[in-house]
Amino acid sequence: MASKTTRRKFLKTALTGAAGAGAAAALPARADDYITPAMTTPGKPFSGYGMPSPHEAAVKRITRPPGISPGTGGSDTPLEQLEGIITPNGLHYERHHNGVPDIDPATHKLLIHGLVKTPLEFSMDALMRYPRHSAIHFLECGGNSGALGGPQPVQASAGVIHGLLSCAEWTGVKLGLLLDEAGVQPEGKWILAESGDAASLSRSIPLTEAHEQGIIAMFQNGERIRPEQGYPVRLLMPGWEGNLNIKWLHRIKVTPGPTMTKDETSKYSQSLKGGKANQFNFIQPVKSVITRPSGGLTMNGPGYYEISGVAWSGHGKITKVEISMDKGATWVEAEMPGPILPKCLTRFRLPWEWDGKDIVLQSRSTDDQGNLQPTREQWHAPYSVAQFYQCNAIQCWQVSADNSVKNVYA
Amino acid sequence: MASKTTRRKFLKTALTGAAGAGAAAALPARADDYITPAMTTPGKPFSGYGMPSPHEAAVKRITRPPGISPGTGGSDTPLEQLEGIITPNGLHYERHHNGVPDIDPATHKLLIHGLVKTPLEFSMDALMRYPRHSAIHFLECGGNSGALGGPQPVQASAGVIHGLLSCAEWTGVKLGLLLDEAGVQPEGKWILAESGDAASLSRSIPLTEAHEQGIIAMFQNGERIRPEQGYPVRLLMPGWEGNLNIKWLHRIKVTPGPTMTKDETSKYSQSLKGGKANQFNFIQPVKSVITRPSGGLTMNGPGYYEISGVAWSGHGKITKVEISMDKGATWVEAEMPGPILPKCLTRFRLPWEWDGKDIVLQSRSTDDQGNLQPTREQWHAPYSVAQFYQCNAIQCWQVSADNSVKNVYA
Repeated sequence: MASKTTRRKFLKTALTGAAGAGAAAALPARADDYITPAMTTPGKPFSGYGMPSPHEAAVKRITRPPGISPGTGGSDTPLEQLEGIITPNGLHYERHHNGVPDIDPATHKLLIHGLVKTPLEFSMDALMRYPRHSAIHFLECGGNSGALGGPQPVQASAGVIHGLLSCAEWTGVKLGLLLDEAGVQPEGKWILAESGDAASLSRSIPLTEAHEQGIIAMFQNGERIRPEQGYPVRLLMPGWEGNLNIKWLHRIKVTPGPTMTKDETSKYSQSLKGGKANQFNFIQPVKSVITRPSGGLTMNGPGYYEISGVAWSGHGKITKVEISMDKGATWVEAEMPGPILPKCLTRFRLPWEWDGKDIVLQSRSTDDQGNLQPTREQWHAPYSVAQFYQCNAIQCWQVSADNSVKNVYA
Repeated sequence: MASKTTRRKFLKTALTGAAGAGAAAALPARADDYITPAMTTPGKPFSGYGMPSPHEAAVKRITRPPGISPGTGGSDTPLEQLEGIITPNGLHYERHHNGVPDIDPATHKLLIHGLVKTPLEFSMDALMRYPRHSAIHFLECGGNSGALGGPQPVQASAGVIHGLLSCAEWTGVKLGLLLDEAGVQPEGKWILAESGDAASLSRSIPLTEAHEQGIIAMFQNGERIRPEQGYPVRLLMPGWEGNLNIKWLHRIKVTPGPTMTKDETSKYSQSLKGGKANQFNFIQPVKSVITRPSGGLTMNGPGYYEISGVAWSGHGKITKVEISMDKGATWVEAEMPGPILPKCLTRFRLPWEWDGKDIVLQSRSTDDQGNLQPTREQWHAPYSVAQFYQCNAIQCWQVSADNSVKNVYA
């Protein structure tokens, strides 16, 4: 395929290639009497709560070696093995600082205090009686994709490099409603949100945004939030870096300014060239990644493929995803069949006829605020060498004639 | 609340009531040093595939007593315990005729034959190479809610009465693409789709609709389809009755007309008054159900509540959900914050201040084809007494001063 092909020509060529992509044409003597072993065996009975097929046991979160202590670290969503935009709850990424606490919802309380007229304490039963809000949003660790900041391209899968990223339908109570009930005093300009595990992770958030956008989330993809995602209740700030979406939420304190906690001073600041740093860069930038083909997957020789992946932005909706096959010289727009929702993963697809030669595939996304995903060089320009937070650099996958797919800096 | 209140007045009253719905105002001597047991205990380590909290063990599919043989019957999604529109895969309803077969994806094949130019056989690996399509759609058994056809109102939960209903993001290959590759002969007007379990469930579908709308689905909410939903591959006809969304799909035969299989002649026909029957009524009609409050749940006395539930239509998008509190005399429009997607569950919500007196709550939905959900009497009018398929009658819940919620025919 020529690198300067138009999208129309490109789609026509590739869709022609799609027919016969994988079908075995020769048909054995089988038809109406086509009987398999499963057709002569009684099946398993009904179950109260289902699990994936044992044949899919390899599809699991990628757990990393523990950090400074057991329960400290993360596990990645295996993006290259998933489809669509919803992450099943069992595969939602994890990032813990003291493992997963066991919290009894019958005794757990959420406290709202500080610069409020009436400090309030909410049982889970009390929270359940408030009006609810549901929306599908991505959640992404502020350190996701940070590997692209390194001097050499790490040879790893899309999940390992970009899998501190998941997407679910969240349901809960709007934080603004609870803050209004407590009555914020005029001096209250920020909140401090603190987790109820032994890490006591805490972050400061400006009051205006917390009031407008915050959700006290209790449900994830329809069911109650999973233990790893903050059971029985977490803070959700849609589009904001994962770390401040406080899990196992037990306390919100209204404060005059940022509290400058250990979790926001020792981490999540972006060190700049020259020794200064940006602090409180809350919103995850516009981003995309091709998950198929991607690092570590094996091609099946020349022929038809679908290029597919996900795009997202903490600023709003994705308006465009483009694919380059010539190291960024030209770009072809991918299809986004939808749904396209704000602060949510958006699936993109592009049919592709591979000629079997070495090629570099890249995707870049644009959001409805006009933000365009930068190259690695553009992204890194203002920062010190070690800075890796909120990395939204374009991912380059080298597809090679030997059928390998590798992470490259192209 | 007066039954003839306007929506504006209604919302204002109810939202005022929302503040203080459940909060405990008195605050003990707790603040920054508010320490719980979970805050002094190391948490559990990372896991490859997560599960719900042990505290949520009661939230499970409602399994019914087996029918004529083990593995024959269904299990319901507990609608009243869920939120939003996505059903988590572990709680997707089941309906089996011979239990859940164990099918090895390495050997499973999908055959397309009959009135085609080239019969084709697809391995799962081959299917994986085709272009994919993702969409969020409800799936509903044709017999769901049939209990409302009975002479007396069954005392059961929303899940037991209406829970042969779930909603997921499905991803697969468009059936039309595979049929085109096989090349349908001019005499081919219908397809027969057959399951690869020992029930060999098979249904006839008109070719035009199968070609346009059919999806050979391999993923459910991001991950591979669950065994109970047809692993490794099922047919999805969005909006059409569940039974013909053939699970464990192993064969599609192009035929000149409907095959009149046992699964479509002994069942799924709607017997009419006078002894005739409607056959091949494929599309699930416009429908809604209030899940909160609903049968078997317990009220907490007078005060603020959110009325909430789901609406759906096999014909398209939901455009309106209305609530009546006076046995259908007047209707108030509920909020639908979205997303509102075609052939997909749509969540509706309405704030409500309950005065503690007996009241009947009903919901009715309208879709973008102009279909309006009927009363039980309207729905049943053309049918014989025993007919219960595709029941979309309005559900009436009696909320009583003793805090009980019951199924009534109002």
